[in-house]
This record gives sequence, C-alpha cells and structure tokens, in this order.
Amino acid sequence: MRNVIVTDIERADLDRIDALAGYGVATVHEALGRTGYLGPGLRPAWPGARTGGNAVTVLSWPGDNLMIHVAVEQCREGDILVVTTTSPSTDGMFGELFATALRHRGVRGVVINAGVRDVAELRAMGFPAWSAAVSAQGTVKATPGAVNVPITIGGQLVRPGDTIVADDDGVLVCPRQDLERGIEASAARAAKEAATREAFEKGELGLDRYGLRERLPELGLTYVTAREYDGGR
Amino acid sequence: MRNVIVTDIERADLDRIDALAGYGVATVHEALGRTGYLGPGLRPAWPGARTGGNAVTVLSWPGDNLMIHVAVEQCREGDILVVTTTSPSTDGMFGELFATALRHRGVRGVVINAGVRDVAELRAMGFPAWSAAVSAQGTVKATPGAVNVPITIGGQLVRPGDTIVADDDGVLVCPRQDLERGIEASAARAAKEAATREAFEKGELGLDRYGLRERLPELGLTYVTAREYDGGR
Amino acid sequence: MRNVIVTDIERADLDRIDALAGYGVATVHEALGRTGYLGPGLRPAWPGARTGGNAVTVLSWPGDNLMIHVAVEQCREGDILVVTTTSPSTDGMFGELFATALRHRGVRGVVINAGVRDVAELRAMGFPAWSAAVSAQGTVKATPGAVNVPITIGGQLVRPGDTIVADDDGVLVCPRQDLERGIEASAARAAKEAATREAFEKGELGLDRYGLRERLPELGLTYVTAREYDGGR
Amino acid sequence: MRNVIVTDIERADLDRIDALAGYGVATVHEALGRTGYLGPGLRPAWPGARTGGNAVTVLSWPGDNLMIHVAVEQCREGDILVVTTTSPSTDGMFGELFATALRHRGVRGVVINAGVRDVAELRAMGFPAWSAAVSAQGTVKATPGAVNVPITIGGQLVRPGDTIVADDDGVLVCPRQDLERGIEASAARAAKEAATREAFEKGELGLDRYGLRERLPELGLTYVTAREYDGGR
Amino acid sequence: MRNVIVTDIERADLDRIDALAGYGVATVHEALGRTGYLGPGLRPAWPGARTGGNAVTVLSWPGDNLMIHVAVEQCREGDILVVTTTSPSTDGMFGELFATALRHRGVRGVVINAGVRDVAELRAMGFPAWSAAVSAQGTVKATPGAVNVPITIGGQLVRPGDTIVADDDGVLVCPRQDLERGIEASAARAAKEAATREAFEKGELGLDRYGLRERLPELGLTYVTAREYDGGR
Amino acid sequence: MRNVIVTDIERADLDRIDALAGYGVATVHEALGRTGYLGPGLRPAWPGARTGGNAVTVLSWPGDNLMIHVAVEQCREGDILVVTTTSPSTDGMFGELFATALRHRGVRGVVINAGVRDVAELRAMGFPAWSAAVSAQGTVKATPGAVNVPITIGGQLVRPGDTIVADDDGVLVCPRQDLERGIEASAARAAKEAATREAFEKGELGLDRYGLRERLPELGLTYVTAREYDGGR
Repeated sequence: MRNVIVTDIERADLDRIDALAGYGVATVHEALGRTGYLGPGLRPAWPGARTGGNAVTVLSWPGDNLMIHVAVEQCREGDILVVTTTSPSTDGMFGELFATALRHRGVRGVVINAGVRDVAELRAMGFPAWSAAVSAQGTVKATPGAVNVPITIGGQLVRPGDTIVADDDGVLVCPRQDLERGIEASAARAAKEAATREAFEKGELGLDRYGLRERLPELGLTYVTAREYDGGR
Repeated sequence: MRNVIVTDIERADLDRIDALAGYGVATVHEALGRTGYLGPGLRPAWPGARTGGNAVTVLSWPGDNLMIHVAVEQCREGDILVVTTTSPSTDGMFGELFATALRHRGVRGVVINAGVRDVAELRAMGFPAWSAAVSAQGTVKATPGAVNVPITIGGQLVRPGDTIVADDDGVLVCPRQDLERGIEASAARAAKEAATREAFEKGELGLDRYGLRERLPELGLTYVTAREYDGGR
Repeated sequence: MRNVIVTDIERADLDRIDALAGYGVATVHEALGRTGYLGPGLRPAWPGARTGGNAVTVLSWPGDNLMIHVAVEQCREGDILVVTTTSPSTDGMFGELFATALRHRGVRGVVINAGVRDVAELRAMGFPAWSAAVSAQGTVKATPGAVNVPITIGGQLVRPGDTIVADDDGVLVCPRQDLERGIEASAARAAKEAATREAFEKGELGLDRYGLRERLPELGLTYVTAREYDGGR
Repeated sequence: MRNVIVTDIERADLDRIDALAGYGVATVHEALGRTGYLGPGLRPAWPGARTGGNAVTVLSWPGDNLMIHVAVEQCREGDILVVTTTSPSTDGMFGELFATALRHRGVRGVVINAGVRDVAELRAMGFPAWSAAVSAQGTVKATPGAVNVPITIGGQLVRPGDTIVADDDGVLVCPRQDLERGIEASAARAAKEAATREAFEKGELGLDRYGLRERLPELGLTYVTAREYDGGR
Repeated sequence: MRNVIVTDIERADLDRIDALAGYGVATVHEALGRTGYLGPGLRPAWPGARTGGNAVTVLSWPGDNLMIHVAVEQCREGDILVVTTTSPSTDGMFGELFATALRHRGVRGVVINAGVRDVAELRAMGFPAWSAAVSAQGTVKATPGAVNVPITIGGQLVRPGDTIVADDDGVLVCPRQDLERGIEASAARAAKEAATREAFEKGELGLDRYGLRERLPELGLTYVTAREYDGGR
Repeated sequence: MRNVIVTDIERADLDRIDALAGYGVATVHEALGRTGYLGPGLRPAWPGARTGGNAVTVLSWPGDNLMIHVAVEQCREGDILVVTTTSPSTDGMFGELFATALRHRGVRGVVINAGVRDVAELRAMGFPAWSAAVSAQGTVKATPGAVNVPITIGGQLVRPGDTIVADDDGVLVCPRQDLERGIEASAARAAKEAATREAFEKGELGLDRYGLRERLPELGLTYVTAREYDGGR
C-alpha cells in the first residue's frame, strides 16, 4: 500500500485557510496548544513570504524526484506541496521548473524536507519555498514513493488536506478537522497578544501581567544585589 | 545560590560602549587578542544591525522562558539581553512581545543561544536579535533559573555588565574591566587596518607588508611552476 | 611535495568562462551529468551574486591564513580563490582586507570551506564570497600549506585552473578540459529548460513530457481515491 | 486533548512479537517494504541487545521527565517505553532508577529520542536502551505532556500498542495491524537471505542472482579497463 | 595576559576527590543542583572507566598541541588534564605518547574538547580519555595558548584545581570550593537513590513517591481510556 | 564517462601493504606528512580491527547500492571496498550478505561514507567495516554510478589501487606510488615514537625532547604563579 497515489483528497475552504494563515505561524502554534510546528530545520528560500494552503503530500526516495512529478497533477488552486524523503537528503529536488508548473495550477508554495535550487529564480518569481537545504545537486526519476499519504516532518504528522501555514518563522500544520478551532483560538490569541503589546508599550511587565511575580518565591528564586552575590562567593 | 536574580549590577558608560561598538566585532576581536567571540553559531535574525550594550544575563531551562520575564525588569537603557539555556535548545523563547517590552526600557537588542520567533516583526521593528536558531516553537514559564549570573556561550564567559558588541559577523563580549583597553586597542587596530587597506588598494601584498615572504623558506615552502609540479608527480 | 606554491598554472579564457557561468550553477551541474557541485555546505555571504572564474586553490592549516597571503600573489584578473583546510574549521580566515587586495588584482570572488568575516563590508564592496560559515574568529599566520595543488571540497576535486561557477545555489567546479563541452551541454540544457518552462506555463505535466506516466505501473505505483485508501486501512 | 494519559491500550501477543523480533531490525525493515525504521539517530547504550515489545508512548517537554513517571504506571509485561520530546533535547531523562521500576513491571527496554544516563548501570543490569544521546544532564518534573498518544521519531509514526523491534542496527516500529503480515514477510525474507547467503558463500554474485547484469547496458553502464580509462582522460 | 602558563595552582586532597568521584557523574550532577555537566559532546574513548582528579587546564589553538606539551610539566599525581581549543576542532591532539608521559606523573586521565587518537593503545594502557572526537589527524606545535587559566566546555566554566569527575555518562566539574558540599550532597543523594531503588524494586511508583499524582489535575492532565480517546477524535 | 566500471586496476603487493598497515593509521598519517586521513566521520562498526588493502572504489547514488553489487565482481584477495555517494547519505547500503560475498573473494573489509547494517553479524563474522553511520534503512538497485574511478572522502582523494589502512582511529589512504616511501617513513616514525615512549616513561618532557622550551619566550609565553595570576586580575 506504500507505492500509491491517492486522488480526490478532501480539502478545506481557501477563505478559511486564509483566515488562519493571516495570524502567522507563531500565533497559530500557540493557539493550537503549542503543537504543529515543523521545526527550525525548515527555512524560507527567501525572506518575507507568508502563505497558507491545503497540503498535498509527497514521500520520495532520497536523490529522486519522480514523485514530485507525479504529485503536480494532484495539485490544484490553493494547495501547498509538502515533500519529505524516506531517509535524510539535502539534494536539490525542487527548482524553478516545478515552480512554474505549480504556479500554473494555482499552487501557493512548496515545503520540502530536503533541498531546493534555483533560489534566485524562485525569489524573482515570488514563489515561496521552505526547505531543509539549498542545493544544486540534481536528482533522478527512478524509484517510486507515494503521493497524498500521511508523512511526518519535524516530529509532526502531515495528512493530505491538512492546513499548512508558513512564514519567516517556518512552517506549521493544522489538522483539517481543527481548522475552525484554530481560527477561533488564533483570533483569541491575537487579541490577547494585542492587549499585551499595548500593555508592554506602556511599561507593564510580564512578571505582573502573567502573575509570575508571586510564584517566584515558591520556585526558590531569590533577589540579591550584585554586591551581596559577589560577596557570597 | 543558582536560582537567584542579581540586581544592581555595575555597568559601563554607554558612550564608552558606543566607542567600542563602532569598530565592529571582527576588529574588536583582533584588538582584544583574538578573544571574546561567541562563535559562528549565533546569527542575526535580520542583516545590517550593529550595536553594543551592557550585558544582562539570563540562564534558562530549555523550553522555558520564565527567566526572561524576570530579567526584563532588570534591564535599563543601553542594555543587551544575553540568554542561554542549561542544555542545548532551539526553541523560540523570544519574540516580538519581549522586544516590545525591552524597547520600552531602552534595551538595544537580544543575544540568545536558542531560538527566536516573529523574525518578520523584529525586522519591521528594527529590534536586533542574534540567535542560534529561528523557531516558532513556544515555551512554558515553569522552571527557575538565574538572572545576572556569569554564563558561557561559544566557549566565552559573559558576566553581567560586560560589554556586548554585535553585528553581521556575530557577537563579542568584552569584559567590563577591559573596555578602555579594548577601545584603545581597537582604535590602533582600525588605524592599522586603514593603512593596510590603502596599501592593498595600491597593490602591496600581505606577503611583504607582514614580513611573511622571508619566512617561507624556513617553513619549508618552495615555489615550483605548474609544469615542474605536474612533471614531478 | 606538500608545502609547495605552484606558479604559472594554466587558465581558461575568461570569455569562455563567462559563457559557462551565465547558465548558473544548477543548469551547468545538470549539463555536466550531475557532477561538480561543491555541496550545500557552501552558502553565499550575501544574496544575488553570480560569477565564474579560474580557480586558484589554497590548502591551509585550520586557524591559519598564511597560505591565503601567499596565494594572493598568484592571483590575476578573472580568478576565483578557492580555499580549504586540512581539517574542518569555521574560523574567519577571510575578510575585507583580503577582498581589497584581491579586487586590486581583478579577482572575482572567494570560495572558502571555512569562515568569512566582515560580511557587511563584503556586501558593501560587492565582493562575492561563498563559505561554510560566517565567523569573526581570527587566525594566525604560522603553519605552511600549499597553493595551486588539487584540493577537494564537498566530495569534488578542484584543480588549479579549473572553472568555478557560483551563485545563490552554491558553487560548482568544471574541469578545465571539460569547459567547452560544459558550455555546449549547458546551452543544450538551457534550451531544453526553456522549452519545458514554456510547456509548463501552458499546463503540460512532467509526467507526460518526460514519459513517466507509462512507467508508473511497472514501478508498482497505483492510483486510489482517498475514500478507497482510507477504507483500506 | 493533548495533555492526556491514555489507559487500556490494545497490545499484541508477546509470542507473536517475539516471532517478529527474532528476525532483527534490518530483516523486518526489508520485509515490511523498507519502512518503519526510526533512523540512525537512535543508538544502543550498550551493544548486543535484541528485543521486541508493545510500545507505550510518551510525549515529554524538553528537560522534563514528569511524563515518564506517569507512564511507568501504564506499563506491563512485554512493553517497551518509547519517549520523544516536543522539541529536540539531549538531556538525560532516563536512568537506572527508571530501569529498576520498569523491570519490576516486566518492561523489556526503553527507546528515547533524547538522552539516557547511568549507562554503566544499565549495562550491568542488562536493561536495553536506545537513545539519541548519552547525557548526565538532569531534568525537572514540571510540565505536562501525554502518554499513549501517537508520536513520531525519525519520520515514523509510533502508535501505542505498535510493535517495537530493536537491536544493534537501531529501532523499528511495526504497526500492530501489520504484525502478522510482518512475521510472514520476515520469514520469507529470512529464507531468501539464507539462500542468498549460501549462494554468496559459494561465490555467486548479486549481479547474477538479482538479474542486474543484463540491466547495466540500459542504465548506460560500460566496462573499460584501467588502461583505457586512464588513456581516455 | 592570555599567553600565560600558570604554575603552583591550588588543588584539592585526592582522598576527598575520590570520595566525590565514587558517586559517579550523574549522582554528583544532581547533588550539585543539576550543574557542572560538560555536556553530551564528550564521550569516553573506551567504556568502563570512572575517575576523578584535579583539573589542569589547557587552552590550545586548533590544529596545534604545543600547549599540551607545556602543560605536562605542570601536572602531578592525581591530576586530570582538561583541554579545549579557541575554536572548534576535531583534530587528534592527544595520543599514546602523551598518555605515557602523563601516567609517569600520576595523571589519571584526559578530557579534551577536540580529538584523541591511538584509542586502541589508550584502551590497552587503561588510560582514560574523554573527547569530542576520535581522529588520527595530526597537529603542529606552533601557536601559543595558555595553561591553567579558566576555560569553558559545554557551557561550564572549568578553573584550574577544580575537581573533575568522569565516567561512561561523561564529564563533570565541581568547583574546588564546592567539593565538601558536593561530597555531602552526593552522599545524601546516593542514600535517597538507594531508598528509591529499593522502593522501585518493590513496585512503588515515582508518581506516588515524589507526590506527583496529586499535581496531575492542576497541570491539566486527564486520564482517558484508549476507547474514549479514539472515539473522541 | 561517469557511468563506468573500470576493470584490471593496478594493485600493490599485499606483503608491502601489510608492512604499512602494521604501523597503524596515526603513525602512517604522521609519516606521510600528516595527510591521507579520511576524517573523524568514519568510525568502526566494532572495535579492535586493524587491516590494510588495495582500494576498489565505488561511487553510488544515495539510497542505492546497485554499484556495490557491480563492484563485488571487481574485488579480489586483499582488497578493501571503499564506497561513497554522490550526495550525503546515512542509509544502510552494506550488510552481512555483502560481507559474505566479499569474504569469499578474500576482501579484507569495507569503508563506506554512508551507513552499514547487520553490525552484530559483521562483528560475529569478524568482517571489519568503517562507516559514517549505522542504519537499517534499506536501499534500491536502480541508479548507475561508477566503480574504480577516483572518489573523495573527508577531503582526501582515493584512487583505485591506492593503499587503505584502517583501525580504531579511522581510515587512511596512501597513494599507490607512495607506498614504499610510506613504509620507510613509517618505520622511521615508529622508531622515533619508540624512543620517545621510552624517554617519556623515564620522565623526560616533550618540552625538552622537542626543543620547545626555548621557543616559548619568543612566542610570548610567560610563566606566572597562580597567586600572581589571580592578583593580576
């Protein structure tokens, strides 16, 4: 059942995805209960993009991009291609030609747990890419894998049709069934952050705002002056 | 004595710090005798910043930013927050809300031997940050640590009140008692570099300028033509 | 024979090198049969440069840039300095002063399998640099090595006088004797890519263009709907 | 739903697990279609163990082993504790005291995507452990996580009750519903390997045994003598 | 002041050091308040050693073991040589000849934040070594450093005369002035561990022994059966 | 010319190789002028082996061991198989079945810049293996590469027929034409080491034996007592 191409996956509505993506990766991650982040290993090929979409997933053999070719056909408007390999690889599996093909289909970006190339061209096209490496190393098209099966990146499970949010902080997956909850919780979180920002701009401290100050003694934290501290050594 | 918050640390004058910081990390590092560099693991969250300040140090538990909240209160005009963890971590312990609170207090930047998040926002704010990672992974506020105790990053000891200099080449610590010596030596080094630059622009070689050419034979270095070298194999 | 400085190396014509470099690293890499790429470990110090040149090679002791000083004298118009160390190092062996000296000689850039520093200055000068690290850590001038001997970086052999191509995707070496073949093959590859780009812009799929679709069954790949796939589990 | 302790998970029969584990990680991995391997990052704390068991899974906060304490109670005869953290950690979350508690319950070993300590004691006890690091760094018991939820290590999903097989080659997960298929396929694979071993001992070549020789020309592979090859350069 | 060889350092009594070292790295680390561990990057060259001694510290240039030669003379009975480099290095700075010279002086082992070689010979000699790498790569004797100045490894400060404890779990530093406190606290910790071990052998749970069970609800942890959990998704 | 299998390579006499290998990796490395070491990344699968042989080289695609199958046929008595991949890989490309086939042909071991598996079986067979990883991850047999072409590992060029020496310190290559010189120089080096060992056993210092003591002042090294040093701070 592994060498399979799954078609007709369910997707979320793009306007709902856009509602989530607008909050950005860090806020949504907190809102979901500090889960879903695909880790610091995925970095943007160029800075400044923020997007969201429905995950089309690809499981490829290292050094081989056959399954990305297969996956392009399964993509449609508002998708984000999410690729990993069966063992770690930095090869440049994805470049400008794939971006061209995907953009024709309305795909919003690529997330790849391996390498991308043509980064100058991707930047010029404005096609967003998050990857584990930048590498010109080319690949073959020889060994099968799978499209639209569950994959894992950075300790997170990504199922086809899950919602992807990505920006300069990295990439996040929100399970499709949690999308509405994620939007609500992100709105609440963003409101709370806005209030905190305003308070911080006026000089309030997190110590007070979050009720931390009174917990310090029970944690065994004590205040001493530098003079006392240096004298005590 | 570890779970301690040290107050009233001594600091250096900001105009003296600015005098040092203006020379940049690489020049000050050379001037101090090739010491104080916090290593290539700390990279700027966005390019182009150069700053200096008095170190307020934080020792945090991995995955926990409680002590940063505690430390904010200890910060004042011209400080730079310097954070490390008791064991390696890439978590996004610091973001835009902290930057907002610190900017209110006149803090000039953050150096964190772990992750930062909200990098797009930090860039937009112009708040400088150097970190070991970019990560959206959130943290808790549960476990105590210390503020303003000596910490080490990249094999260098950073004491509270030491002078921090940071730019696109990374981060440097200059012990507070060495600040005046550092400024003097940096001025001398910068003057020497300016003279060398001028000489190099005219075509002089380091081989001659540094008196290296005459040492080559004693080091066993010999000149051969490519024809001789290829023939000799 | 190791502590040697080889002079009078053969070089390729700069207009031929420019012809190759114009195609960029990824295209030339493919055109040469997916070889010559120096690996994802070398990253540009600043984005946007693309250049090519004749390799002047340097083998240095870690923590020591003596041989770069020696090598400057061997450089001329259109060269690219390519440096590695006898064991892994991240030290900042190369900075703005070297760049000044090399620019005076018409050198087009540096490739260094260790660290660079003064990256803000290199960017301001427009002097391209690809390196394994950014580090302010300074080096001594004490231990001999070699100039213009064959070296290896990222599993690739670089001989003095080989052609270097470098851009945002990294660095590539083309053996000098393969230069004409490389230009020809790159032209063919670029033409093929242009045709593919045009086809992809119109919606053709790689599956069809590369004749992959008919090979899928023999690779054991099968199409199932999401409903079938989920039901089958 | 994340901070949850799931009880009463389904398990497989231990005699069936033993049947699988006897084939070893590499054979079972091949038999399952080259899937389920938890990656080269997990190494045995001491060499020579081979075991199998039902997975009890733990998701912990980095630097915190509270959830392992919680998980002990959920373990029974024939289990293997499988632990990961919400972000990368090398801390020594597991040592001899946990091993003592688990052995009392008949647990067969631990797999931990972080650090273990007391490795001399674990070896002396004969308690098998596979981990991402050896570290004496201690942890706290402050932050909640989860027990017996699906987790991922090395790109593989581990569900509670899945079958774990581990030996000097690392760790493998076989989904519980695939256990019988895995045993059958492993038996077939082992038989095939035995036949191949016997053939190889007599001098047969993989080239012939696997029918590879006739495919070489179509792959563009050609034979040349060293004399021809060196002459052709 | 950096290129200095400090003589006549103060040391602790060897019988007191032995008293501490007998508890092992993990226990002492806990007893000291989870501090002093030099990190998972230092591994024993061969398994099974456990020792302790007075630190003689060395700061070397990468690729250069001159200062180890200088340091040998400063060593005496019961010392442990602790070496780091000014920037990261894996070179084989230490081997059998150094071990021979040190053993003559009664030195008990070496801790080196770089590479060792001759590991088969070190094992045969029974000379303990903890290192960041095993490497045959040789070094020169050209560049000065320092002996018996404070150095840092793995985020810990090691001062000359501090107590080193090392075993299969890695290496720990206990400040000299904390030695008696460390022995006392380790004895208490070991007694507590012995009681816990006995309790665990009888089936008591850490959940109960450490009073964790009643804290689970306030941490938001809830118990659900697998059936409930799977149904709830 | 890349997808080629080179036959009839020249080899060195096995008794000469044995003469070299007997000195061990570290001694030969020094004797050759500190060159030829394949780096600390290659570790033995089991400790205690020391061997030497003629290199049969393999260049493989990552995740693909087709070319090892092809290479077996090119191996003969006294060879060592040396494998690398076109881009970094940790996959378990080599295991017990290959070892069985190679042992039948008198091959003495394998060096692989990727992963091995079946390490328990390799140890039981006494078949030496040096690798960059241990991994059960299996590979396919789909993509061509090359046999007996020059390859590079750890910055060293390995040509077919070059002499390989390997032990617990790692792996070394000695160019075939340097074999006699290597034996002579290793003998001289070993004699020198024996004399040094004897001197060190009697308490002589490297400082004196290597004439370093008189160079310390010119290097700016000064002796101070701990009292002076601490007072001077």
